[in-house]
Amino acid sequence: MRFIIQRDRLVQSVQDVMKAVTSRTTIPILTGIKIVATNEGVTFTGSDSDISIESFIPVEETGDEIVEIKQTGAIVLTAKVFSEIVRKLPTDTVEIEVQNHLQTVIRSGKSEFNLNGLDAEEYPHLPQIEEDNVFKVPTDLLKMLIRQTVFAVSTSETRPVLTGVNWKVENSELICIATDSHRLALRKAKIEHEGNVSYNVVIPGKSLSELSKILDDNNDPVDIVITENQVLFKAKHLLFFSRLLEGNYPDTTRLIPAESKTDVVLNTKEFLHSIDRASLLAREGRNNVVKFATIDGGTIELSSNTPEVGKVVEELQSESIEGEELKISFSAKYVMDALKALEGTEIKISFTGAMRPFIIKPLNDESILQLILPVRTY
Amino acid sequence: MRFIIQRDRLVQSVQDVMKAVTSRTTIPILTGIKIVATNEGVTFTGSDSDISIESFIPVEETGDEIVEIKQTGAIVLTAKVFSEIVRKLPTDTVEIEVQNHLQTVIRSGKSEFNLNGLDAEEYPHLPQIEEDNVFKVPTDLLKMLIRQTVFAVSTSETRPVLTGVNWKVENSELICIATDSHRLALRKAKIEHEGNVSYNVVIPGKSLSELSKILDDNNDPVDIVITENQVLFKAKHLLFFSRLLEGNYPDTTRLIPAESKTDVVLNTKEFLHSIDRASLLAREGRNNVVKFATIDGGTIELSSNTPEVGKVVEELQSESIEGEELKISFSAKYVMDALKALEGTEIKISFTGAMRPFIIKPLNDESILQLILPVRTY
Repeated sequence: MRFIIQRDRLVQSVQDVMKAVTSRTTIPILTGIKIVATNEGVTFTGSDSDISIESFIPVEETGDEIVEIKQTGAIVLTAKVFSEIVRKLPTDTVEIEVQNHLQTVIRSGKSEFNLNGLDAEEYPHLPQIEEDNVFKVPTDLLKMLIRQTVFAVSTSETRPVLTGVNWKVENSELICIATDSHRLALRKAKIEHEGNVSYNVVIPGKSLSELSKILDDNNDPVDIVITENQVLFKAKHLLFFSRLLEGNYPDTTRLIPAESKTDVVLNTKEFLHSIDRASLLAREGRNNVVKFATIDGGTIELSSNTPEVGKVVEELQSESIEGEELKISFSAKYVMDALKALEGTEIKISFTGAMRPFIIKPLNDESILQLILPVRTY
Repeated sequence: MRFIIQRDRLVQSVQDVMKAVTSRTTIPILTGIKIVATNEGVTFTGSDSDISIESFIPVEETGDEIVEIKQTGAIVLTAKVFSEIVRKLPTDTVEIEVQNHLQTVIRSGKSEFNLNGLDAEEYPHLPQIEEDNVFKVPTDLLKMLIRQTVFAVSTSETRPVLTGVNWKVENSELICIATDSHRLALRKAKIEHEGNVSYNVVIPGKSLSELSKILDDNNDPVDIVITENQVLFKAKHLLFFSRLLEGNYPDTTRLIPAESKTDVVLNTKEFLHSIDRASLLAREGRNNVVKFATIDGGTIELSSNTPEVGKVVEELQSESIEGEELKISFSAKYVMDALKALEGTEIKISFTGAMRPFIIKPLNDESILQLILPVRTY
């Protein structure tokens, strides 16, 4: 194998596939990046066996030569060392050559690195996925769907299925749901879907977070293929594979109250900042609960009391309060997470009593919903 | 105590004095910030008993009212909570009021915090320093002196005096020296000094690093007062006290070779980047040593070999090589630290043989010197 490649493109591809590589693997070859040079271009692969990422650099793009292939072939190089080297090379082009079977030379200007490679034949094969049923989501919408739900997955391995996000596809609609059983995030979106197949799968939260980091900010469509135990995201020159989580995701529809007794409309930012301040002292006391009360004249009072530190009272003018008076306590962190995930300058909170879950939505937007369980202190 | 203060100034002062506050103190009151309101303004103090910082906010500055004192007095508030609160308050002015002896109310817009304060009478007194002999160093020069030496202090407590920087004042010259016994950094500067007193003290490296972070980037003079066991730095509205280290600092003058056998002039950045690359694999092998050799035609070869990972060879064109041929090995980290501390685009390295310490200086600048001990591998 021997090729000369533009350094910037090399750096970008290596950085992308590195997202799948972990040093904490029990399979030594997975600490490496696989490099395969064909007459079409060079493919880089990184994997931790849960997530696999493949980045392709074509020989030519829009008339510019990006790679000059001198000899096809393949090698695996230690990811950590290789990625540091390529970032620090002095010149705009880099030559990579495999000599004597596995010895690999990296040349750039007057720098010459000799790395001990590993046999690419021993690198695990990526899952073979048949692309019969593909649906498409624009990149920016996909990143938004992830951002608005993935924070709510469980971090505890007690119920492994809750560490993933439930993706349901039906009637050209994608519904993403995450819950850690104290709060729930739900986001819907219309999708382009040629077939009419339904899916109900659970994608690990970690996979979605990593995918989101790699995708550029544009509205190019990402092709999504779901199989029995894998999901594949295909963007330009990039393949992202993730295993799916086994087990049935709980039915969450019955958790979401259909009616409400108190509806409050608030400015999102003001509410977020008020909760942040109201919870400052509570955080110090290792409990992150604030009290929320409707008071006269459309005013909301947020408060917390941590005897060893002090207490805080915040007043906040609502846009409107409808229905019953209410006193309720909740985790400041959960409500702040939910508010950060919502778009829109105004939100509506719908309560059905101090002991029932409540719902936060942007005003006039039915595509997203955040549900939070209160804490019993009032 | 009761006053109304501009929030931005409050935030800045609290942030400055926080640099001295540590949660790992055995004296509970030192986890707090002392606030003293007089008719002249408000003084904030933080201390970990090694370092003490005092920041003063005057009632008025250049005609603008900054603080409105309603009632003089003093209180100590938990530093961590208080600093977080002031950063997040909603309005431009803040009212702070001590009620019922120690209960302190902080008001800003519709936010109201009630903190449990501590008695300011119990806060330790700052050292009393007589300001008989003051010398002055411009702020930017002081920060430079610190940056160019403090990185070379020892991090080991085996010889505590080496964790500090040796400051010597004599004949209107300040000499700062730091060494961890593997390398040494020395920086001289002319100072304004009215008396003609000599000093030879050791200032903890940590104190100088913290001081450097607090000082603004300007060329206003900082007044420096040295006593038997304390040093005081006085900038505008800011007092910074540090204890001095006990014990005699070793005489380092005899370490610095007066002659050289090989002199090499190199471009600083090129040399830095070459060492960085040459040491990439060595770092992986847990040993950070690179080999340096003069070869034909004014070229320098940097190399390292880590059998389990690979090897690297870097060539570098020097501006000039004078004297004997040389092969030497050194810690890449020490040389890179030294190069980062030097100013100037070209440096001169003076060797006196493969087993002797070598010196790095900017070309044509005698005010700064970095000395490094080689490693015996060639």
